[in-house]
Amino acid sequence: MKRIVYFLGLASALVALLLAGVLNVRAGGSAVAPAPNGLEIPEGYRDWRIIAPSHRTDNNTLRVIVGNEKAVSAAREGRTNPWPDGAILGKIVWKDATHEAWPAATVPGSFVHAEFMVKDHTRYRDTGGWGFARWVGPEQKPYGQGPEFVQECFGCHLPVKNSDYVFTRPAVIP
Amino acid sequence: MKRIVYFLGLASALVALLLAGVLNVRAGGSAVAPAPNGLEIPEGYRDWRIIAPSHRTDNNTLRVIVGNEKAVSAAREGRTNPWPDGAILGKIVWKDATHEAWPAATVPGSFVHAEFMVKDHTRYRDTGGWGFARWVGPEQKPYGQGPEFVQECFGCHLPVKNSDYVFTRPAVIP
Repeated sequence: MKRIVYFLGLASALVALLLAGVLNVRAGGSAVAPAPNGLEIPEGYRDWRIIAPSHRTDNNTLRVIVGNEKAVSAAREGRTNPWPDGAILGKIVWKDATHEAWPAATVPGSFVHAEFMVKDHTRYRDTGGWGFARWVGPEQKPYGQGPEFVQECFGCHLPVKNSDYVFTRPAVIP
Repeated sequence: MKRIVYFLGLASALVALLLAGVLNVRAGGSAVAPAPNGLEIPEGYRDWRIIAPSHRTDNNTLRVIVGNEKAVSAAREGRTNPWPDGAILGKIVWKDATHEAWPAATVPGSFVHAEFMVKDHTRYRDTGGWGFARWVGPEQKPYGQGPEFVQECFGCHLPVKNSDYVFTRPAVIP
């Protein structure tokens, strides 16, 4: 009898440990909340390759536009009008700061947000074939109250309808 | 006899093909001439990860500073004063251009040059532990007439001696 109790105790401890492990993995996988339209933040985007930098003087931000494998391949091969399904463009944005040792240089200050455009011409038919999402601040808070926030993104990209709703022109890197 | 001639012809054609292949590979490997101080252009730098963007209004250029594995790891872990031996920083530079659909945005125009700092505190003892090199234009012409060009680079980096002669402060990317 003692043996059975001992065994049951051991078994439940094992189950508890396994459960904790599973929950931990789930928590790790969903550390950043999805956008209101269901888009998850793309994993590993800070390791993505460069498509181009930019500097906006209307809101004083510096940006680097990066892409997943499909986007960078498309950019380098000139397949950007339209961009292929599966391409994801990421825009990493910082507030302007000045370099104390080089006052004429604008350098990244605080992190503002990372925003993404995911190409899927059927799924996102209503917004030019692009799914939009943005995560704000170092805490990566999803932007927008409801899924209708994408209309704001799409509206801003309408002037570049002729380049598949994308502002970024891939920079030449020999 | 006919057979032997045929065989010899086939064999020499094969040798010629092999030689052409070897020469072609060699030509590919040395397509870009080394800098006057012997530094070779780092392979695959256009696939390196971001450390920070910058915008210089004194010479109207946009830049992205990238790093090899050692440099990006050091940047993310705060091991940048000094940077570790083996770290290579790359600066990819474009002339300012204006986006026709967003006039307040400065975007990359023509490619200016790619320049590099290679950390080796013994080998480059005379220039702060850094080997410098630059390749100019899409044709990637090495900068400088002789190896003394590095004094120009080093002189420009002297004001940031306290940050291991590096201007770039790694940007926050969550």
